[in-house]
Amino acid sequence: MNIYLAGPDVFLPDALDMGRRKAELCARYGLTGLFPLDNAVALAAHDASLQIFRGNEAMMDRADAIIANLTPFRGPSADAGTVYELGYMAGRSKLVLGYSNDPATYVDRVARFETISNRDGLLIGADGLAVEDFGLPDNLMLIHCLDLHGAPLVTPRSAPADLWHDLAAFESCVQIAAQRLPRLAT
Amino acid sequence: MNIYLAGPDVFLPDALDMGRRKAELCARYGLTGLFPLDNAVALAAHDASLQIFRGNEAMMDRADAIIANLTPFRGPSADAGTVYELGYMAGRSKLVLGYSNDPATYVDRVARFETISNRDGLLIGADGLAVEDFGLPDNLMLIHCLDLHGAPLVTPRSAPADLWHDLAAFESCVQIAAQRLPRLAT
Repeated sequence: MNIYLAGPDVFLPDALDMGRRKAELCARYGLTGLFPLDNAVALAAHDASLQIFRGNEAMMDRADAIIANLTPFRGPSADAGTVYELGYMAGRSKLVLGYSNDPATYVDRVARFETISNRDGLLIGADGLAVEDFGLPDNLMLIHCLDLHGAPLVTPRSAPADLWHDLAAFESCVQIAAQRLPRLAT
Repeated sequence: MNIYLAGPDVFLPDALDMGRRKAELCARYGLTGLFPLDNAVALAAHDASLQIFRGNEAMMDRADAIIANLTPFRGPSADAGTVYELGYMAGRSKLVLGYSNDPATYVDRVARFETISNRDGLLIGADGLAVEDFGLPDNLMLIHCLDLHGAPLVTPRSAPADLWHDLAAFESCVQIAAQRLPRLAT
């Protein structure tokens, strides 16, 4: 059973090592982790980004599930590329799992970057747009996609010291995948 | 032909009016715009966010295409909920169209929020993670999804005075949808 390993991990300085660690954890549970950087891409080519897209899409198409790293990235929400992939896999009716190493609510995350005002009970961001206030860690589409098409978002009780390298929440997702996928195969 | 109207427009103070304006533009080209806020939701209910998710998913499932407002939202990238929906519709093999009223590249967008350093030609953000540098306006997964499963991202030559209410780029997407969808129906 193949698991697509989505996340901004690909942008880490030690991205290849993270991919290896994640794949090893998958193997420990009898699963095969597919890491985007495993695709061969000529980075100097004029169409390198298109090659990456095609490689990732083909990898998703042959995966049975996705484990998405939805830790907030450059703002209060998860990485856009990872969120795209979560949606794509849900659209393909694959098993969708995800984790965030930051358990804070979306409101608390937004408040790190800007002042939120309260207008008659409605929370408004600095941009004048409403701040989603359902007590969820991120936009409701991501969170409930996991609830209904996979398993609830996995978060630690408190953020680990190393937000980008701690794999405890990731491993919980792998365990869920290992429990679910044999049943899917029958 | 039904078009799902995705975007952080739902968070605007005049969200209902924006939905009405977008639906009217669709109607002008013979299309039916489906706006998320048209779903009936009991906002005071304990499961309001789940009701919204289910309503949006059902709306996407009966739409033939999506037009996603990918203008950057609370950071350098598009709104997470909208990006999820773009992925979901691509996964469902629907026609995917999108626009951003901010034409800046991703690197320029990130530079608005943090200092980017250059390590041997690789751009690194304040978080120590690489900054995608393909000259694209957002994460390559979003941009090339549009290229391959719809039409290239529509952007104005320069950002309009009112980033959240200018509908010129949106109307261009509607025109593309009107050209494409009759062919899909044959």
